[in-house]
Amino acid sequence: MISIGTIVMGAADVRRAAEFWSRALDYVPRDGEVTDDWVVLVPADGPGPGLSLGLSTTPVQEHPRVHLDLYARDAAEQAAEVARLESLGAERVDWDRYPDNADFVVLADTEGNRFCVIDTAHG
Amino acid sequence: MISIGTIVMGAADVRRAAEFWSRALDYVPRDGEVTDDWVVLVPADGPGPGLSLGLSTTPVQEHPRVHLDLYARDAAEQAAEVARLESLGAERVDWDRYPDNADFVVLADTEGNRFCVIDTAHG
Repeated sequence: MISIGTIVMGAADVRRAAEFWSRALDYVPRDGEVTDDWVVLVPADGPGPGLSLGLSTTPVQEHPRVHLDLYARDAAEQAAEVARLESLGAERVDWDRYPDNADFVVLADTEGNRFCVIDTAHG
Repeated sequence: MISIGTIVMGAADVRRAAEFWSRALDYVPRDGEVTDDWVVLVPADGPGPGLSLGLSTTPVQEHPRVHLDLYARDAAEQAAEVARLESLGAERVDWDRYPDNADFVVLADTEGNRFCVIDTAHG
Protein backbone atom coordinates (compact mmCIF):
# COMPACT_ATOMS: atom_id res chain seq x y z
CA MET A 1 0.00 0.00 0.00
CA ILE A 2 1.14 3.56 -0.60
CA SER A 3 2.51 5.58 2.27
CA ILE A 4 3.62 9.14 2.89
CA GLY A 5 7.14 9.28 1.48
CA THR A 6 8.04 12.93 1.72
CA ILE A 7 6.53 16.35 2.09
CA VAL A 8 7.71 18.56 -0.77
CA MET A 9 8.26 22.25 -0.17
CA GLY A 10 9.23 24.93 -2.63
CA ALA A 11 12.41 26.94 -2.31
CA ALA A 12 14.05 29.83 -4.13
CA ASP A 13 17.42 28.47 -2.98
CA VAL A 14 17.37 24.70 -2.57
CA ARG A 15 20.84 24.46 -1.03
CA ARG A 16 20.04 27.12 1.56
CA ALA A 17 16.74 25.40 2.39
CA ALA A 18 18.50 22.04 2.64
CA GLU A 19 21.00 23.50 5.08
CA PHE A 20 18.23 24.97 7.22
CA TRP A 21 16.03 21.88 7.33
CA SER A 22 18.93 19.48 7.84
CA ARG A 23 19.87 21.33 10.99
CA ALA A 24 16.29 21.99 12.06
CA LEU A 25 15.29 18.31 12.04
CA ASP A 26 18.64 16.48 12.13
CA TYR A 27 18.07 15.25 8.59
CA VAL A 28 20.62 14.41 5.88
CA PRO A 29 20.44 14.38 2.09
CA ARG A 30 19.35 10.96 0.82
CA ASP A 31 22.29 9.36 -1.03
CA GLY A 32 24.25 12.47 -0.05
CA GLU A 33 22.90 14.29 -3.07
CA VAL A 34 21.89 17.95 -3.22
CA THR A 35 21.43 19.79 -6.51
CA ASP A 36 20.39 23.34 -7.34
CA ASP A 37 16.91 22.04 -8.16
CA TRP A 38 16.10 19.23 -5.76
CA VAL A 39 17.00 17.38 -2.61
CA VAL A 40 15.33 14.70 -0.54
CA LEU A 41 16.23 14.93 3.13
CA VAL A 42 15.74 11.95 5.43
CA PRO A 43 16.25 11.46 9.16
CA ALA A 44 19.91 11.03 10.13
CA ASP A 45 18.79 8.33 12.60
CA GLY A 46 15.79 6.10 12.51
CA PRO A 47 12.46 6.29 10.72
CA GLY A 48 10.33 9.29 9.91
CA PRO A 49 9.02 10.98 6.79
CA GLY A 50 11.33 12.58 4.28
CA LEU A 51 11.32 16.26 3.44
CA SER A 52 11.94 17.24 -0.17
CA LEU A 53 12.90 20.69 -1.33
CA GLY A 54 12.34 21.69 -4.92
CA LEU A 55 13.15 24.84 -6.85
CA SER A 56 9.88 26.76 -7.10
CA THR A 57 8.56 30.12 -8.14
CA THR A 58 5.08 29.43 -6.77
CA PRO A 59 4.44 32.10 -4.15
CA VAL A 60 4.05 31.34 -0.48
CA GLN A 61 0.46 31.72 0.68
CA GLU A 62 -0.28 33.93 3.69
CA HIS A 63 -2.55 31.23 5.11
CA PRO A 64 -0.96 28.19 3.51
CA ARG A 65 -3.22 25.54 2.02
CA VAL A 66 -0.65 22.92 3.07
CA HIS A 67 1.94 23.24 5.83
CA LEU A 68 4.03 21.32 8.34
CA ASP A 69 3.29 21.00 12.06
CA LEU A 70 6.44 20.25 14.04
CA TYR A 71 5.94 18.74 17.47
CA ALA A 72 7.74 19.70 20.68
CA ARG A 73 7.23 17.74 23.90
CA ASP A 74 6.29 20.71 26.05
CA ALA A 75 6.40 24.50 26.32
CA ALA A 76 10.04 24.55 27.38
CA GLU A 77 11.17 22.50 24.40
CA GLN A 78 8.95 24.57 22.12
CA ALA A 79 10.57 27.82 23.31
CA ALA A 80 14.08 26.41 23.03
CA GLU A 81 13.44 25.01 19.58
CA VAL A 82 11.84 28.20 18.28
CA ALA A 83 14.93 30.11 19.44
CA ARG A 84 17.20 27.53 17.81
CA LEU A 85 15.24 27.69 14.53
CA GLU A 86 15.47 31.48 14.56
CA SER A 87 19.23 31.20 15.00
CA LEU A 88 19.27 28.97 11.90
CA GLY A 89 17.44 31.55 9.81
CA ALA A 90 13.74 31.06 10.52
CA GLU A 91 11.60 34.11 11.15
CA ARG A 92 8.59 34.61 13.34
CA VAL A 93 5.39 35.25 11.42
CA ASP A 94 3.05 37.94 12.68
CA TRP A 95 0.14 35.49 12.64
CA ASP A 96 -3.33 36.99 12.65
CA ARG A 97 -5.17 33.89 13.78
CA TYR A 98 -3.74 32.89 17.14
CA PRO A 99 -6.51 31.77 19.47
CA ASP A 100 -6.37 32.78 23.16
CA ASN A 101 -4.97 29.42 24.23
CA ALA A 102 -2.50 29.10 21.36
CA ASP A 103 -0.13 26.18 21.81
CA PHE A 104 1.59 26.87 18.50
CA VAL A 105 4.10 29.35 17.11
CA VAL A 106 4.14 30.22 13.42
CA LEU A 107 7.53 30.53 11.77
CA ALA A 108 8.79 30.85 8.21
CA ASP A 109 11.81 28.98 6.90
CA THR A 110 14.61 30.60 4.90
CA GLU A 111 12.36 30.39 1.80
CA GLY A 112 9.31 31.92 3.44
CA ASN A 113 7.49 28.61 3.87
CA ARG A 114 5.28 28.90 6.92
CA PHE A 115 5.13 26.12 9.49
CA CYS A 116 4.10 25.64 13.12
CA VAL A 117 5.98 24.53 16.21
CA ILE A 118 3.51 22.98 18.61
CA ASP A 119 3.63 22.38 22.35
CA THR A 120 2.05 18.92 22.54
CA ALA A 121 2.06 18.62 26.35
CA HIS A 122 -1.69 19.20 26.52
CA GLY A 123 -2.52 16.64 23.88
CA MET B 1 14.26 17.87 19.50
CA ILE B 2 11.30 18.80 17.32
CA SER B 3 10.10 16.38 14.70
CA ILE B 4 7.58 16.35 11.89
CA GLY B 5 4.27 15.68 13.63
CA THR B 6 1.74 16.08 10.87
CA ILE B 7 1.26 17.56 7.45
CA VAL B 8 -1.73 19.89 7.49
CA MET B 9 -3.91 20.19 4.39
CA GLY B 10 -6.87 22.44 3.81
CA ALA B 11 -10.32 21.11 3.04
CA ALA B 12 -13.70 22.57 2.18
CA ASP B 13 -15.29 19.48 3.77
CA VAL B 14 -13.14 18.08 6.58
CA ARG B 15 -15.26 14.97 7.12
CA ARG B 16 -15.17 14.09 3.43
CA ALA B 17 -11.41 14.64 3.33
CA ALA B 18 -10.97 12.53 6.48
CA GLU B 19 -12.94 9.70 4.88
CA PHE B 20 -10.80 9.86 1.75
CA TRP B 21 -7.42 10.01 3.46
CA SER B 22 -8.30 7.39 6.07
CA ARG B 23 -8.99 4.93 3.31
CA ALA B 24 -6.15 6.12 1.09
CA LEU B 25 -3.45 5.58 3.73
CA ASP B 26 -5.12 3.23 6.24
CA TYR B 27 -5.17 6.01 8.81
CA VAL B 28 -7.63 6.61 11.67
CA PRO B 29 -8.69 9.75 13.54
CA ARG B 30 -6.48 10.32 16.58
CA ASP B 31 -8.55 9.81 19.72
CA GLY B 32 -11.42 8.91 17.38
CA GLU B 33 -12.25 12.57 16.99
CA VAL B 34 -13.42 14.29 13.79
CA THR B 35 -15.09 17.70 13.81
CA ASP B 36 -16.38 19.95 11.05
CA ASP B 37 -13.21 22.05 11.38
CA TRP B 38 -10.35 19.73 12.17
CA VAL B 39 -9.06 16.18 12.36
CA VAL B 40 -5.67 14.61 12.94
CA LEU B 41 -5.31 11.25 11.20
CA VAL B 42 -2.64 8.79 12.30
CA PRO B 43 -1.57 5.40 10.97
CA ALA B 44 -3.92 2.59 12.01
CA ASP B 45 -0.84 0.42 12.57
CA GLY B 46 2.67 1.39 13.48
CA PRO B 47 4.62 4.62 13.12
CA GLY B 48 4.48 7.24 10.44
CA PRO B 49 3.63 10.92 10.21
CA GLY B 50 0.15 12.19 10.93
CA LEU B 51 -2.03 13.95 8.40
CA SER B 52 -4.20 16.81 9.62
CA LEU B 53 -7.13 18.27 7.74
CA GLY B 54 -8.38 21.72 8.56
CA LEU B 55 -11.28 23.75 7.23
CA SER B 56 -9.77 26.21 4.77
CA THR B 57 -10.82 28.72 2.17
CA THR B 58 -7.26 29.24 0.92
CA PRO B 59 -7.30 28.26 -2.74
CA VAL B 60 -5.41 25.29 -4.11
CA GLN B 61 -2.39 26.32 -6.15
CA GLU B 62 -1.98 24.95 -9.67
CA HIS B 63 1.69 24.18 -8.95
CA PRO B 64 1.50 23.76 -5.19
CA ARG B 65 4.15 25.37 -3.04
CA VAL B 66 3.82 22.42 -0.63
CA HIS B 67 2.51 18.95 -1.44
CA LEU B 68 2.68 15.28 -0.48
CA ASP B 69 4.63 12.60 -2.32
CA LEU B 70 3.17 9.14 -1.69
CA TYR B 71 5.47 6.22 -2.36
CA ALA B 72 4.60 2.97 -4.15
CA ARG B 73 7.07 0.08 -4.35
CA ASP B 74 6.96 -0.30 -8.14
CA ALA B 75 4.99 0.56 -11.27
CA ALA B 76 2.42 -2.18 -10.67
CA GLU B 77 1.62 -0.98 -7.16
CA GLN B 78 1.58 2.61 -8.40
CA ALA B 79 -1.01 1.76 -11.07
CA ALA B 80 -3.15 -0.25 -8.67
CA GLU B 81 -3.03 2.44 -6.02
CA VAL B 82 -3.84 5.24 -8.45
CA ALA B 83 -6.90 3.26 -9.56
CA ARG B 84 -7.88 2.64 -5.95
CA LEU B 85 -7.48 6.33 -5.07
CA GLU B 86 -9.62 7.30 -8.04
CA SER B 87 -12.31 4.91 -6.82
CA LEU B 88 -12.19 6.73 -3.47
CA GLY B 89 -12.75 10.11 -5.10
CA ALA B 90 -9.35 11.32 -6.25
CA GLU B 91 -9.04 12.81 -9.71
CA ARG B 92 -6.21 12.79 -12.19
CA VAL B 93 -4.65 16.16 -12.78
CA ASP B 94 -3.77 17.15 -16.33
CA TRP B 95 -0.21 17.98 -15.28
CA ASP B 96 1.75 20.23 -17.60
CA ARG B 97 5.19 19.36 -16.28
CA TYR B 98 5.66 15.63 -16.71
CA PRO B 99 9.20 14.87 -17.87
CA ASP B 100 9.75 12.13 -20.46
CA ASN B 101 10.73 9.58 -17.86
CA ALA B 102 8.02 10.50 -15.37
CA ASP B 103 7.81 8.06 -12.49
CA PHE B 104 5.01 10.02 -10.82
CA VAL B 105 1.30 10.55 -11.30
CA VAL B 106 -0.38 13.76 -10.13
CA LEU B 107 -3.77 13.39 -8.45
CA ALA B 108 -6.07 15.69 -6.52
CA ASP B 109 -7.92 14.63 -3.39
CA THR B 110 -11.62 15.25 -2.78
CA GLU B 111 -10.74 18.84 -1.80
CA GLY B 112 -8.60 19.56 -4.83
CA ASN B 113 -5.29 19.20 -2.98
CA ARG B 114 -2.71 17.99 -5.45
CA PHE B 115 -0.32 15.19 -4.56
CA CYS B 116 1.92 12.68 -6.32
CA VAL B 117 2.02 8.89 -6.36
CA ILE B 118 5.56 7.80 -7.12
CA ASP B 119 7.00 4.57 -8.48
CA THR B 120 10.10 4.21 -6.30
CA ALA B 121 11.48 1.07 -7.98
CA HIS B 122 14.20 3.05 -9.73
CA GLY B 123 15.34 4.87 -6.61
